[in-house]
Amino acid sequence: MNELLHNLIVKNDKKIVLLVLDGVGGLPLERGGLTELETAKTPHLDNLAKESECGLHIPIDKGVAPGSAPGHLALFGYEPLHFPIGRGVVAATGIGFPMKAGDVAARMNFATRDAAGNITDRRAGRIPTEKCAELCELLKKVSIPGVEVFVQPVKDYRAVVVFRGAGLSDKVADTDTQLTGVKPLDPLATEPEGEKTAGIAKEFIKQTFEILKDLHPTNACLLRGFASLPHIPAMKDLFKLNPLALAVYPDYKGVSRLVGMNAIEGIKDLNDQMKILKENWGSYDYFFIHHKYTDSKGEDGNFDGKVKEIEKVDAIIPEILKLNPDVVIVTGDHSTPAVMAAHSGHPVPFLIHAEHIRPDDTDSFGERACARGLWVNIRTTELIQLALSYADKIVKYGA
Amino acid sequence: MNELLHNLIVKNDKKIVLLVLDGVGGLPLERGGLTELETAKTPHLDNLAKESECGLHIPIDKGVAPGSAPGHLALFGYEPLHFPIGRGVVAATGIGFPMKAGDVAARMNFATRDAAGNITDRRAGRIPTEKCAELCELLKKVSIPGVEVFVQPVKDYRAVVVFRGAGLSDKVADTDTQLTGVKPLDPLATEPEGEKTAGIAKEFIKQTFEILKDLHPTNACLLRGFASLPHIPAMKDLFKLNPLALAVYPDYKGVSRLVGMNAIEGIKDLNDQMKILKENWGSYDYFFIHHKYTDSKGEDGNFDGKVKEIEKVDAIIPEILKLNPDVVIVTGDHSTPAVMAAHSGHPVPFLIHAEHIRPDDTDSFGERACARGLWVNIRTTELIQLALSYADKIVKYGA
Repeated sequence: MNELLHNLIVKNDKKIVLLVLDGVGGLPLERGGLTELETAKTPHLDNLAKESECGLHIPIDKGVAPGSAPGHLALFGYEPLHFPIGRGVVAATGIGFPMKAGDVAARMNFATRDAAGNITDRRAGRIPTEKCAELCELLKKVSIPGVEVFVQPVKDYRAVVVFRGAGLSDKVADTDTQLTGVKPLDPLATEPEGEKTAGIAKEFIKQTFEILKDLHPTNACLLRGFASLPHIPAMKDLFKLNPLALAVYPDYKGVSRLVGMNAIEGIKDLNDQMKILKENWGSYDYFFIHHKYTDSKGEDGNFDGKVKEIEKVDAIIPEILKLNPDVVIVTGDHSTPAVMAAHSGHPVPFLIHAEHIRPDDTDSFGERACARGLWVNIRTTELIQLALSYADKIVKYGA
Repeated sequence: MNELLHNLIVKNDKKIVLLVLDGVGGLPLERGGLTELETAKTPHLDNLAKESECGLHIPIDKGVAPGSAPGHLALFGYEPLHFPIGRGVVAATGIGFPMKAGDVAARMNFATRDAAGNITDRRAGRIPTEKCAELCELLKKVSIPGVEVFVQPVKDYRAVVVFRGAGLSDKVADTDTQLTGVKPLDPLATEPEGEKTAGIAKEFIKQTFEILKDLHPTNACLLRGFASLPHIPAMKDLFKLNPLALAVYPDYKGVSRLVGMNAIEGIKDLNDQMKILKENWGSYDYFFIHHKYTDSKGEDGNFDGKVKEIEKVDAIIPEILKLNPDVVIVTGDHSTPAVMAAHSGHPVPFLIHAEHIRPDDTDSFGERACARGLWVNIRTTELIQLALSYADKIVKYGA
C-alpha cells in the first residue's frame, strides 16, 4: 500500500477474517482436467463465492514460487521483498522465543553421521519432539565466552539455536548441504561482518558434536537459515488492526508474531480454531486462521489428500459465517499443485465476502472461476486494502 | 523483474522457444468484424492455445506504440525504457558490424536531390542492395582527421555510417526531415557534448555530397538515429540463458546481438529457420524465431496479406512442437493493425505452452480469446518470468 494511503486508515469495530488454506492453488492431474480446488466438494465455499468478489493473487511476482513466510507477509499486507525473513527467525518466533534485536537464530536439525563424519540421515530418523526436547536440554552445557546460547525444540527433529551477544551478524552460510553421504560444511561468513558469528557457530557445533557423539542416531546437528530479526512495523500501527492468529504450526505463529499478532498456543486442529475464534470474537478485529494440511498433501503429491483437506475447511465455513464477520477472505499463501509436489508460482485463487461487494461472474470457488472474477492477478499485498475498504476502515482520499 | 528475484534464477537444460510474428496484434476491418489473427485459419495455433495459458501483453505502456527495438527488448525481458537503443545502433549491429564503446552510428539513406538542393526522393528510387554496396565502397574516400569512418550497406537504399574516435557523442539531431521538397538539415548538436560529432557528421556529409554529386539518383544521403552502444547485460548473465536468434532481417539480428544472442547469418525464410532450429537444438536453451512479414503486410495496410503470413507461421508449429520444447511462447512485439497501416499501442496476444500451465477458458488464438485468458494486459517484460518459471529455472523465494 502506498505510504500516503496509510493515513486514510481508521479504526472501527468491524471484523475481518482471513482464512488461509496453505498452498491451496493447484493444477489438474491431466491436461484439461480439474484442479484440487475444482475437484473438492465445497458447497459452502461455492455459495460464498457467489456472494463474493473473486480473483487470483500473486504473492511475490509472476512465476515466482513463494516460501511460507513471504507468502503470509504478503497476505498480511507487507511487501515480502522489503521484509526478507530468514528461516532461523521463523523458527524462533514460531515457538514463541522472545528474540531481541541483534540476536541471530538458525534452524537446527538433529541428524545422524557415520564414523567418517558423513551425514547419513538429515533428520535422525525423525525423532519425536519429546526426544528433541531432551537433547536440547543436554545442549545447555554448551558454553561460549561472551555469548548467550539458547537451544529450543521446535517439532520432531527440528530445533532452533539463538545466539545473543554484541557484534553478531546473520551473514553466515548454512552448514546443512541438504545432502547425505557428505560432511556438513563449516559455518562460513558470507560477508566480513559475519566472521565473529561464524566462529561462534563453529564452536557451538564442535561442543554439540562432543556432547552428542555417543547418542546415535542423534550424534550431529545441521544449521541453516542464520537470521536476525527484521524490523517490521506492527499491524496495529500500520493498519490500525488488533489481530489474532489461530495457527497449529509453529512457523505460522512465528510469522504472525513478527507483524504483531497475538498468536495463541496449544491449538491442535480446526475444531480448536473454531472454538478459540468464538471465545475471542469480541476481543479482536482481525482473525488469521491457518490450515496447513492442504499444503502438506500438495507437497506429498497427494491430489486426493489435498482435495479432502479442502473439504474439511469447507465444513467450517458456516461456523465462521454464523459470527457475522464484516469481511471474510478465503485463499492460500501460494499454490502447491499436487502434480508438482512443490510450491509453485501460479496465481492463488481467493474470494472476498462483505456487504458491499460488486457482483461478478464467479459461481464457484476454483481457479478457472476465479480467473473470471473481478480481481485477476492482483498483488497479494493488495488484499489488505480490499479487506480494510470493505470493513469501512479506509476513508476517502482528497477533497 | 525485480533485482532480488534475479538471484533466484538457475540454469538447467530445459528449452524455451519464443516465436515472434512481428506486429501480429490487429484490428477488424469493420467494427464487429474479425482481426487478422482471428480471420487466419490457424488450426495448430488454436490447438496450442487450448493447451496454453493465454493473455495480452503491453510492451511499453498502455496506448504507446513500440518501435521494433524496444518491442523486442521487452520480449527478451529488458525494460525498454531503461535501455534506449538508437536506430544507428540497430542498423550497425543488425549487419554484424562490431561496434565498440564510444562509437557513434547513424542510419543513412541514399537519396535524390534536385539542383536547388531539395530532397526529391528520400529513397533514391529504392536502389537495390548491390548498388548500395557499390556506393558505400565509393564513400571510403571520405577522410576526416582524427576519426575513422565506416560506411556499410544494409538493405536496398539503406546504409549505416559509424564514426570512431575520441570524445564522440550521439547527441546529434537527424539531418533527415522525413519530407521531400526541402533541404536536408545540418547535423546539429542537441547538447553541448554533441558539438564535436555534429562537426564530424557535417564534414562527412559535405565530402559525401561531393563524391555522389554526379550519380543521379543517388546524389545525396540522409542521416538519422545517431546512437552509441548502450550497455545492456547479456541474457547469459541476467537470465542464465544461452540464446540463439533465427531472424531474416538485419535489425532483429541486431537487437538480438545487443542482448548477447548468437544470431546466425544467411537465414532466408521459415524453412531455413526450421532447419537451423533443428540443427542447433542441442546447443542452446533459448530460441528466438522472428517472422517479419506479418508486420510488413500490416504496415502496407494489406489485411489479407497479413492473414496469409499468419497462416504460413501456423504451418510450422508442428515442426517446433516435434522438438519437445519445454516452453513455447507465440506472440508479437507489438500490434500492426492493417487498418491503421502502422504500429499501434494495442495489447499483443500471446500464448505460453508448458507442462505445468493453469488451464484457462481460451480455446483459440486470437485477440478476443486471449482477452479471456489468464494473463490479461501484463507487461511484455514479464513474459520472461513466466517462461523461466515454467522451465523450472526460478527457485522458491524465502523460507
